Amino acid sequence: MHAAAVGDLVQLFSMRDRKSFLLRIQPDERLETHNGVIQHSDLVGKPFGSTVHSHLGTDFVMLTPSTAEITRTLKRRSQIIFPKDLGLILLKLSIEPDQEVIEAGTGSGALTVALARAVGPAGRVHSYDMRADMQHTAHRNLKLVGLAERVTLKTRDIADGFDETDAPALFLDVPNPWDYLEQAHSALRSGGFFGALLPTTNQVTLLLTGLQRESFGLTEVLEVLLRNYKTVAARFRPSDRMVGHTGYLVFARALQPANT
Amino acid sequence: MHAAAVGDLVQLFSMRDRKSFLLRIQPDERLETHNGVIQHSDLVGKPFGSTVHSHLGTDFVMLTPSTAEITRTLKRRSQIIFPKDLGLILLKLSIEPDQEVIEAGTGSGALTVALARAVGPAGRVHSYDMRADMQHTAHRNLKLVGLAERVTLKTRDIADGFDETDAPALFLDVPNPWDYLEQAHSALRSGGFFGALLPTTNQVTLLLTGLQRESFGLTEVLEVLLRNYKTVAARFRPSDRMVGHTGYLVFARALQPANT
Amino acid sequence: MHAAAVGDLVQLFSMRDRKSFLLRIQPDERLETHNGVIQHSDLVGKPFGSTVHSHLGTDFVMLTPSTAEITRTLKRRSQIIFPKDLGLILLKLSIEPDQEVIEAGTGSGALTVALARAVGPAGRVHSYDMRADMQHTAHRNLKLVGLAERVTLKTRDIADGFDETDAPALFLDVPNPWDYLEQAHSALRSGGFFGALLPTTNQVTLLLTGLQRESFGLTEVLEVLLRNYKTVAARFRPSDRMVGHTGYLVFARALQPANT
Amino acid sequence: MHAAAVGDLVQLFSMRDRKSFLLRIQPDERLETHNGVIQHSDLVGKPFGSTVHSHLGTDFVMLTPSTAEITRTLKRRSQIIFPKDLGLILLKLSIEPDQEVIEAGTGSGALTVALARAVGPAGRVHSYDMRADMQHTAHRNLKLVGLAERVTLKTRDIADGFDETDAPALFLDVPNPWDYLEQAHSALRSGGFFGALLPTTNQVTLLLTGLQRESFGLTEVLEVLLRNYKTVAARFRPSDRMVGHTGYLVFARALQPANT
Repeated sequence: MHAAAVGDLVQLFSMRDRKSFLLRIQPDERLETHNGVIQHSDLVGKPFGSTVHSHLGTDFVMLTPSTAEITRTLKRRSQIIFPKDLGLILLKLSIEPDQEVIEAGTGSGALTVALARAVGPAGRVHSYDMRADMQHTAHRNLKLVGLAERVTLKTRDIADGFDETDAPALFLDVPNPWDYLEQAHSALRSGGFFGALLPTTNQVTLLLTGLQRESFGLTEVLEVLLRNYKTVAARFRPSDRMVGHTGYLVFARALQPANT
Repeated sequence: MHAAAVGDLVQLFSMRDRKSFLLRIQPDERLETHNGVIQHSDLVGKPFGSTVHSHLGTDFVMLTPSTAEITRTLKRRSQIIFPKDLGLILLKLSIEPDQEVIEAGTGSGALTVALARAVGPAGRVHSYDMRADMQHTAHRNLKLVGLAERVTLKTRDIADGFDETDAPALFLDVPNPWDYLEQAHSALRSGGFFGALLPTTNQVTLLLTGLQRESFGLTEVLEVLLRNYKTVAARFRPSDRMVGHTGYLVFARALQPANT
Repeated sequence: MHAAAVGDLVQLFSMRDRKSFLLRIQPDERLETHNGVIQHSDLVGKPFGSTVHSHLGTDFVMLTPSTAEITRTLKRRSQIIFPKDLGLILLKLSIEPDQEVIEAGTGSGALTVALARAVGPAGRVHSYDMRADMQHTAHRNLKLVGLAERVTLKTRDIADGFDETDAPALFLDVPNPWDYLEQAHSALRSGGFFGALLPTTNQVTLLLTGLQRESFGLTEVLEVLLRNYKTVAARFRPSDRMVGHTGYLVFARALQPANT
Repeated sequence: MHAAAVGDLVQLFSMRDRKSFLLRIQPDERLETHNGVIQHSDLVGKPFGSTVHSHLGTDFVMLTPSTAEITRTLKRRSQIIFPKDLGLILLKLSIEPDQEVIEAGTGSGALTVALARAVGPAGRVHSYDMRADMQHTAHRNLKLVGLAERVTLKTRDIADGFDETDAPALFLDVPNPWDYLEQAHSALRSGGFFGALLPTTNQVTLLLTGLQRESFGLTEVLEVLLRNYKTVAARFRPSDRMVGHTGYLVFARALQPANT
């Protein structure tokens, strides 16, 4: 049986209002919610997937949090990348265990978490951001979810270039990625995977022009629309509202310049 | 410099017609395409991301294939799961390095490849399928891409149950997943991740009813619409045609039955 | 110049918060909004498309309301049909000036308004609803927008059939349209246009079965996803949120039974 | 009973391959299809919605064609506007019976047909196009479907302006609508409805800038994604492929310049 122990990262999901809480079990702590209090010690020894009750009697299901769930419940100082986009980013960048990959900026760390999980304990994420306060938030998030040791946070202007020179994959979540394409190309191994996320079409056209100039190729621009359905079997239908837009995903490969 | 060597899996991408070829470099072999012949030996020592020419003068870019690219070029005996869905499946099932995960059926092995890449060399995929011919195709695909050692193919009717009892994640790509939910629940660790892909709404409603009966919870039904854009900066616009439907993705968690 | 006169139906659109008000100009009346008061008399003689000011100085643009705008600002007692669906309904039912068409139920009258505008002053809409309170609301809406004379409201259970027998088009906006297909077929001229709007897939499958049984054919099921874009030229992008679902549109033609 | 007569416009829909034919019944003519020949005289007196047979025994359903169907089967010399967009255009431009409306260019006449049907026999469509060959095709299409008398075709460069000065609605289906906004504003009555369809985002941003400069307001940019579903009740699901893009719809109102 897969049971919760002190030190475990767990998600408590309220059956009442579908709110979710992330915590790391510590002997003497307690979780306070508007649906009542839960003592961490009450969770220890309980199998994951079982129901616990707050002191007000509200049911909470205890689970190991998914990567999607973790990124959704992170403390945020900025817009985070949504799960619908994270999945495709990992797949298109072909992230694998044991790789050393690069991202900039760090932001609140949603992509950082997803990358750190995907490269595993023997991999590494090099995450650049100019803003120390952002990286402070990201670091706290990474510590909470137990991934801080897989991530090197670098408080740096990427205009000055990346330290790495042989990265299999690099993702730019910055407003002006076209300004850093030379640096990105130098940081990527030949043939490496490049990705970026941009909210506006104006940005995409600037990036497309830059990618062509800086010897990137096999460029793709993709957009993910995710529909969520209500799960009542007798009245199966999509949800009334959905996310209309997060951003355009741009992927490319670092090619050898034509004259080499 | 990241250069190609004998034994490497490489993708050759024709700049002429955007066709893609997957091959493993072997000293005396050659690739024959309708755009001309390329000797494997001509690739050795060339950096990835560089351009090679067929004997007819057509340009091909040489790359390490992405997971998405691999699944797209697999030999198929059945409908494969599309990259748009694969990315979300890996994320929602929270697949991580070193895990042992389960899928049924094997099909042509597209999800098998994606899972095997995500669990890494120390992980394992247990893949069930009743049809020996399917698994034969999948095995050949897995060997080509160097992932056969991470996968256990089991030619078995899952009505008889799974061998595993503590899997973190299990995915059913079969037409009638509602018939195997008891078996799936037994194979999953408590709190484990369940997923399924179904083309019709009728199937989804049957699965939703089954999931509730068999102590699954936190059920979600999602649908991914992927828009592909043309990459001409001066005329930025979506492609004229798109995939209208592959299937509905159903995700749930294996909960403890209420009375335990 | 196209100027406003007493008796005109006008829309006042607040530039401050993009709220919209519908009114019919009357000599001594005034519009009270949370952005200030506007005297109807101040509108008279002003060209449409010009800006008027409330007593608090807020700018309002005065316009003739579009059909879409009218339906959106109707008093509602029920979910209304959205403009994204109304446009396709009128086109697929091939509504034309001078026709006599049928709908049930009346609801709050959004489709009633759209149909009444499309058939014009020499056409007619026969609108059935069992609930007198609904039809009362719809009637008040129709009077406000000057369309009451084109509409016959019938407070009637359509299980008892329609009075008409040669209608070119009939639309059912009821939860169980499959129960009234025989009545609908009798009300339609041979070859006539049938339409329905249903929120759930379960309902659609029941209707599809019914349509086949009752000699309807050329059946189509369509769904309209409308994306709204932000109109800032330098940052062109879709809106963050969108309507995820209203309903499935089902269209068919009333065929002659095979044995006639 | 609604039966076909000489002179009627009818649609014959092949049940075998779902192909559709448009014809006007004439005493001595015949329709030749790859599924066999049908004599026009065989249709006379048959009720609409009934099935006729070709000399090869293939079933065809005879119907009055819908506006959507007519536009889809027009002879084309250019990309036509799709029904999914036509419905919203008519609704957003608030086209009504008896209006005189303007479009440019004429193209193959799909929007011309939809507008001519919507304004009815007492309305009028003024359709501008520089290319005489286009208008020739459009004229033949309009004659076939019996709408030529409602349409004035003007072979003219709209840079020279429109003849009309009080139009309730004007639609520009040209590649560079921003070049004709002053002319469009002059042709529209104050408060009138403006619309345009543009395939690329680059064009939309140019138009948005132009609209603001030329005293248009309440601007909206919309995009219609239409999903088509398979109509088998037991396997209800969307079609595998769909139209990914036709164009961005831009709507605005002609406002009074601020200083008037």
